[in-house]
Amino acid sequence: MIDAIGYAAKHSFSRLKPFKFQREDPKPNEVQIEVLYCGVCHSDIHQVKNEWSNTVYPCVPGHEAVGRVVKAADGGKFKVGDLVGVGCMIDSCRSCEPCTHGDEQYCESPNSFLATYNGPMIPKAKAPTGENIYGRDNTFGGYSNNLVVREEFVLKIPEGLAPDAAAPILCAGVTTYSPMKHWGVKAGDKVGVVGLGGLGHMAVKIARAMGAEVTVFTTTEEKKGEAEALGATHAVIEKEVTRKVEELSAKPGTFDFIISTVPEKHDVNAYVALLKRDRTMVVVGALEPLAPVNNQAVAFHRRSVAGSLIGSIAETQEILDFCAQHNIAPEIEVIPIQDINKAMNKVEKGDARFRYVIDMASLKDEEAEEA
Amino acid sequence: MIDAIGYAAKHSFSRLKPFKFQREDPKPNEVQIEVLYCGVCHSDIHQVKNEWSNTVYPCVPGHEAVGRVVKAADGGKFKVGDLVGVGCMIDSCRSCEPCTHGDEQYCESPNSFLATYNGPMIPKAKAPTGENIYGRDNTFGGYSNNLVVREEFVLKIPEGLAPDAAAPILCAGVTTYSPMKHWGVKAGDKVGVVGLGGLGHMAVKIARAMGAEVTVFTTTEEKKGEAEALGATHAVIEKEVTRKVEELSAKPGTFDFIISTVPEKHDVNAYVALLKRDRTMVVVGALEPLAPVNNQAVAFHRRSVAGSLIGSIAETQEILDFCAQHNIAPEIEVIPIQDINKAMNKVEKGDARFRYVIDMASLKDEEAEEA
Repeated sequence: MIDAIGYAAKHSFSRLKPFKFQREDPKPNEVQIEVLYCGVCHSDIHQVKNEWSNTVYPCVPGHEAVGRVVKAADGGKFKVGDLVGVGCMIDSCRSCEPCTHGDEQYCESPNSFLATYNGPMIPKAKAPTGENIYGRDNTFGGYSNNLVVREEFVLKIPEGLAPDAAAPILCAGVTTYSPMKHWGVKAGDKVGVVGLGGLGHMAVKIARAMGAEVTVFTTTEEKKGEAEALGATHAVIEKEVTRKVEELSAKPGTFDFIISTVPEKHDVNAYVALLKRDRTMVVVGALEPLAPVNNQAVAFHRRSVAGSLIGSIAETQEILDFCAQHNIAPEIEVIPIQDINKAMNKVEKGDARFRYVIDMASLKDEEAEEA
Repeated sequence: MIDAIGYAAKHSFSRLKPFKFQREDPKPNEVQIEVLYCGVCHSDIHQVKNEWSNTVYPCVPGHEAVGRVVKAADGGKFKVGDLVGVGCMIDSCRSCEPCTHGDEQYCESPNSFLATYNGPMIPKAKAPTGENIYGRDNTFGGYSNNLVVREEFVLKIPEGLAPDAAAPILCAGVTTYSPMKHWGVKAGDKVGVVGLGGLGHMAVKIARAMGAEVTVFTTTEEKKGEAEALGATHAVIEKEVTRKVEELSAKPGTFDFIISTVPEKHDVNAYVALLKRDRTMVVVGALEPLAPVNNQAVAFHRRSVAGSLIGSIAETQEILDFCAQHNIAPEIEVIPIQDINKAMNKVEKGDARFRYVIDMASLKDEEAEEA
């Protein structure tokens, strides 16, 4: 067993606090990673607070982890010293239709994929026959000093990406890249990005690097200039996300693709009306019931409202390489782990610019203190 | 000018009553049609009652008209005596992107397409700059003894289709065929049809003829047997359309395509959960806000909820020919026009089996009476 230290929530109204635990030694197909940096995703907050009613405590969040391989079997995919990343998944059934087609994020096994923290995506209690194909009910994520992960689920961090800035690509990057790839965003397309947070700001950078013209819809006055600094051609300020299409300055029927990164219930009707015929608005930020969609605006132009979940392991590697190649990276603020609760409050208020990344070296103080 | 007689509503709470009016003589590119039969669509009721808040009165409904050409220019597409059909559109701008690609139903001109009744789909008052490209604010539909229509918008009724039974193909048929074609329904696919009325029963017949396995979801106990008689492999009885997916007997994640023909606000969440990964549920019956869609079920399998509006002129001809070729036709009950108000009440209650078709010969009694 490997001694580990991380930050955990003990229950749904707990602050994150230092937590010591143990991980199993790596099997021959697994690598042990010393975590250097971990991004702070809005999902971490949803999970810590049990806002999806499925949190297993204690909860050590973190699915945007970058670190160094410290133990690896000979002849494997990685060797000691490699700079690597771990995103939202650490295993899947590897045998269902989506898994065999390289879409592990849509794993259709009874428990879905094994999440980097909080265990199987579909817990035993909710699996069709009460199964647990992974043999564990909980997993501890990247807000910790080490991780042990199957090598197929470990990403290579390409040269040219700083390890701290690379971290948010593992979730925020791939979650916005995957639907843009799937729905065929290309050079010259007009892309709308609703919400300018961790995901939204990556959507802007990636769409721009793909050659698209990007319009950002944000409710925050000060984010207008920030959107333009990120490469958006236009930024539209709205008082509220539910604004009517007549009140938007963007023209109806002119967008090729719109991605909503708003991380809570919202009204997409005004944005749907901005789409060209046969085009799709995809909601990646909110995993909950949306406000009612008016089918008139959908049907009259054969539009679609779709959802998308993170991205595959192959797509995660693609977007890491794409960011390195196009010299783009998340805008981050590095914090010591002792500031995590304060940082989470800021994320909830929309005050992050645009992603907090924990410097895991700060965990050493906790170790010393407890020794 | 041509003398015409039809049945019209004078205002939103009026019964349909005999109404005399005049139509302009056909231009060289138009044909004059003696209407023989006209289907009764739920849209006729929505429009008559001003349930879409856009009705122009007097309102002569009818967009499933079959008749004989009685006047046509030499060298045109049709000759006197041809058996023809007129669906939901009698003109469009013919120059916008959808029109030039043969998708007239998505015409993007300021007024959209010219509907067979109730005039331009987007009236002058709601057009971007108050335009009226068609020069008329109202049109009178097929609940009348004649029609004058541009020949490009007139369909040939193929041999082998009875003229009365052919009528509902012009709206109910193409409205269900068009999305099945667009989303690629093919032999062996598992197709769900929600609601078993005029549209739903045609969806079952067309999907079966395409070689799909069809499951019908209906709230009416007696329609279970009727669904099977129409060719559905399974029929699922639900107490209400909002039933939860756990309570449906169909298995989640197993359907290739689902079409909802329910003509009013409803909850699609249970059906979305039945779709396979990357598949689409299309709502064609309700042109209004739906109940909130839970994006968790959408995003976790990259599903889409889409809408679709009738179908193109080319697709209307295709489905007429397809029905003749596959020896399928709507199940109809022929009524005299004097029974139209009673029939509309039955449609609203879901009592039609499955489409009322007006025998326009009955209009002769009105003419005699008024003479």
